[in-house]
Amino acid sequence: MPSAKGRSTPSWHTWRVSKPSTGDRVAKASSSSTELLKLRGRIDAIDRQLRTLLNNRAACAEEVARLKTRLDADAPAYYRPDREAEILARLRAENEGPLPDAHIERLFREIISCCLSLEQPLTIACLGPSGTYTEAAAIKQFGHFAKMRTLSTVADVFREVESGAAHYGVVAVENSTDGMVKHTLDCFTTSSLSICAEVELPIHHALLIRRGGDPEEIVEICSHEQSLAQCRHWLDVRYPTQSRRPVSSNAEAARIAADTDGVAAIAGEAAADRYGLDTVHANIEDQPGNKTRFFVVGNQQVEPTGRDRTSIIVSTRNEPGALYKVLAPFKRHDISLSRIESRPSQTSAWDYVFFIDFEGHRNDDSVTGVLAELNKVATGVKNLGSYPRALD
Amino acid sequence: MPSAKGRSTPSWHTWRVSKPSTGDRVAKASSSSTELLKLRGRIDAIDRQLRTLLNNRAACAEEVARLKTRLDADAPAYYRPDREAEILARLRAENEGPLPDAHIERLFREIISCCLSLEQPLTIACLGPSGTYTEAAAIKQFGHFAKMRTLSTVADVFREVESGAAHYGVVAVENSTDGMVKHTLDCFTTSSLSICAEVELPIHHALLIRRGGDPEEIVEICSHEQSLAQCRHWLDVRYPTQSRRPVSSNAEAARIAADTDGVAAIAGEAAADRYGLDTVHANIEDQPGNKTRFFVVGNQQVEPTGRDRTSIIVSTRNEPGALYKVLAPFKRHDISLSRIESRPSQTSAWDYVFFIDFEGHRNDDSVTGVLAELNKVATGVKNLGSYPRALD
Repeated sequence: MPSAKGRSTPSWHTWRVSKPSTGDRVAKASSSSTELLKLRGRIDAIDRQLRTLLNNRAACAEEVARLKTRLDADAPAYYRPDREAEILARLRAENEGPLPDAHIERLFREIISCCLSLEQPLTIACLGPSGTYTEAAAIKQFGHFAKMRTLSTVADVFREVESGAAHYGVVAVENSTDGMVKHTLDCFTTSSLSICAEVELPIHHALLIRRGGDPEEIVEICSHEQSLAQCRHWLDVRYPTQSRRPVSSNAEAARIAADTDGVAAIAGEAAADRYGLDTVHANIEDQPGNKTRFFVVGNQQVEPTGRDRTSIIVSTRNEPGALYKVLAPFKRHDISLSRIESRPSQTSAWDYVFFIDFEGHRNDDSVTGVLAELNKVATGVKNLGSYPRALD
Repeated sequence: MPSAKGRSTPSWHTWRVSKPSTGDRVAKASSSSTELLKLRGRIDAIDRQLRTLLNNRAACAEEVARLKTRLDADAPAYYRPDREAEILARLRAENEGPLPDAHIERLFREIISCCLSLEQPLTIACLGPSGTYTEAAAIKQFGHFAKMRTLSTVADVFREVESGAAHYGVVAVENSTDGMVKHTLDCFTTSSLSICAEVELPIHHALLIRRGGDPEEIVEICSHEQSLAQCRHWLDVRYPTQSRRPVSSNAEAARIAADTDGVAAIAGEAAADRYGLDTVHANIEDQPGNKTRFFVVGNQQVEPTGRDRTSIIVSTRNEPGALYKVLAPFKRHDISLSRIESRPSQTSAWDYVFFIDFEGHRNDDSVTGVLAELNKVATGVKNLGSYPRALD
């Protein structure tokens, strides 16, 4: 802190007073004040109605919870991902504005989260430390009234839900940090948990430097290895001679850039705000539309919403045409695959394991047909769950 | 991950199907289903009304913003802490339930934050790193639609707001971590910023151990030095022989306890969830009602709400009876002091500086009277701001 010496001013000894208004200004102010008072009255009336409706909603939610307890005293499912997805999709589709759809969704996530917390405060297990993308995905899905419990491995997240210590887990399935997909998929082969929902987070990278720094003076660019890889082409064109330094996380890169002249970081724009950095270039990722996808896992079979996806694991013998045999039923039933991933089997019995995501719900006739056919050609078929597709 | 070997079961090959229901269960389910459908219909209707009201509220807020811009094109104050405090106090006071007052407040903070973000997304400077109590206080005051910018020192927070890079700053003023008060108060002596609001966060400590650990086997207790101090008496009685280890933060202590048998951590209950710990004892702090208090600072004079507090700095010469002279006017005007703190002056001109908080607003007659008297006996009086008192 600079010393106060020589900085104290006469105003230190007096109260600040409003500047005298000119007549014109007073007249304008006066008519505007009346309008302002009217608008505030309207907002107050709206707020009262909002509060009453929020309380009515909570009372209905309590009633639903009582009904569910009566119906299934052992394990009532207070949280219904299918129902919630339908509510949010409809609220967005019919949104009249001026609030953007994404804001409406965020507010209703909080409202639903708040009403639910009266009955059963949800505990959500996710990969730590606090502040990870996985935690952000969990908050996007469950709102701020849910309790987040961060754990150190994906396997711990599965165990936490299996043991009942957490109601649901959130795990990255297609992640910008390498190795995550593998760990998550391996957990699914041995776990009894189902996929209850998916969450997508858009990933954008920006080139950031210390505030007021000169972009011409960048000598080094640091970021997580995977982010550097995701911007490789852009960097090759714009910063071909600067050294690239992989660090433990994008947040760490932002911290370094904030402290060091000539060092730029690749990180999300949020990091620019957090660490007080200037954005030199936004959206520098080679692949636009880059997203990280997460699964919500739990002990629950989710009902159809009309916008569903199903994930399965199929194991086959190591023989010619194995993949073709697995894919043919999808073609015949005109089912669109959204992802296929092969992994070495973890048991000696199977040689290949395919992780397949496709459109549709296990209750759909076409899906039932595909699965019946797959059961004939594969050595094993495991249903990981049918769940509502993520909202944009 | 354990290998899947020997764990694959026949169910791996088949779809899970619902258990067949008994007749009784079907009848109960059927009448309950009808009730459930009715309740869901009511919730859907409420949600539609809520969305319409939220959009109406946003439209009103836009209208208010347009009026303010017309009235004061240079620096329209979209955010009004006094107005917001009044809204929230009234919503809480008249809350009909079943949502608790605190939930109503949290939801409305988000609603206000969301409406405001349409006009002017607020940027809030606060002490980092991300995840601090200060950030939690900023979110409590401004909601999740505001952008948080975490900085490394309190002086940086003041500078960020003075330079206009952030709209408001949040700084701890009475904190459980030592030294904060001092830094913050010193910043006020030289800054032109005013206090616009105060925020209080309750602080509770718990004794936590690794899940499933045995409380009888605790040999060491670790925590931030200040937290150890705040629980000293309790520890002396309950754990007199165990060693106490100060670490960099309570979160770090929780992390250590999660990894180490026989080590307990003192931290907030939230840390138990985050790090998967068991709570051995809750609320072990020697002083119940322990709170941390934060100030929101900005370039704004806040209007009275009827529940206000004023903070001033008074400097006096080093002479006998100086403190008495400062306190006498408050006594005469029957004004209740909530805090007085003396600090060595930072300039040679003054020998003592007193930081004083008291009930009332600068517009109140009694406050004007006190300040006039103080100006006669003190070498300097600086108004730090009148602001709404924090809600519980």
